[in-house]
Amino acid sequence: MSFSIRTGKKKDVQAILDLIVELAIFEKLPNEVELTTDDLLRDGFSDQPKFKTFVAEETDGTIIGMALFYERYSTWKGTTIHLEDLMVRESKRGIGAGKALYTAVLKHAHDNECKRVAWDVLDWNTNAINFYESTGANVLPDWRVVHMNEQNLDKFINENF
Amino acid sequence: MSFSIRTGKKKDVQAILDLIVELAIFEKLPNEVELTTDDLLRDGFSDQPKFKTFVAEETDGTIIGMALFYERYSTWKGTTIHLEDLMVRESKRGIGAGKALYTAVLKHAHDNECKRVAWDVLDWNTNAINFYESTGANVLPDWRVVHMNEQNLDKFINENF
Repeated sequence: MSFSIRTGKKKDVQAILDLIVELAIFEKLPNEVELTTDDLLRDGFSDQPKFKTFVAEETDGTIIGMALFYERYSTWKGTTIHLEDLMVRESKRGIGAGKALYTAVLKHAHDNECKRVAWDVLDWNTNAINFYESTGANVLPDWRVVHMNEQNLDKFINENF
Repeated sequence: MSFSIRTGKKKDVQAILDLIVELAIFEKLPNEVELTTDDLLRDGFSDQPKFKTFVAEETDGTIIGMALFYERYSTWKGTTIHLEDLMVRESKRGIGAGKALYTAVLKHAHDNECKRVAWDVLDWNTNAINFYESTGANVLPDWRVVHMNEQNLDKFINENF
């Protein structure tokens, strides 16, 4: 069955959340997902959305993949795009939906004159890394991601205020 | 001389840009900074600012450090804060301005009920890493940062459209 790429809409939030959960399972951290469809509706489909989405939709209306992204700000380059999640249902891999979503995000960034698109990847996800590098993206060898999680943030604030 | 932390204002953009450049020199990539004070004014001090700043100001009005941050969106946690830059002038290190700026950003995140604060660090910057870890932050061992830069984005789009 063929698919097409379009902007995500309110009616897609359940499918988007299902894909978020499937990605978290793949990343071996399924219990980390605290988001609900209400959160997605409020945060992504209101007057000042905090993110945008593209979805891959089969001709019968089934959503088989999605990309979720938003603006960031580089003190070197100005406005950039961050690709937070890109996911295609496991049963629908290999038909080009992933590359089509990826291309749609890059096209959006290019149309909006963003000077960089950034995202994070797990270092053991060699399929993804090989694909990204084949398109001209660079996996930065010397930068690491730092997270202060909710629990440690609470602790830090309680100790310092 | 003592200092205080306050929200950055329009009048601070030259001092903020000077600190951005000083940080890029420290990171050994001084030619990467393309941003101007006009860009900072437009992007950070308009109706819908793309970032916020805190500055460390000495009693005579001199800006000796700054933190620049903005919202991101986690598909696991919802709204998060990203700390893009935190910099104190080299001649003003050791008086607590860095920790005060860092604490101000974490307090802002906590006050706004963000469930995560994230940032990137160079893997050879052990002083920074040791400090971050001492406050409860985690340097993620298995995530890597990926960038599609402007030149390669242009190339990808030209090849695919």
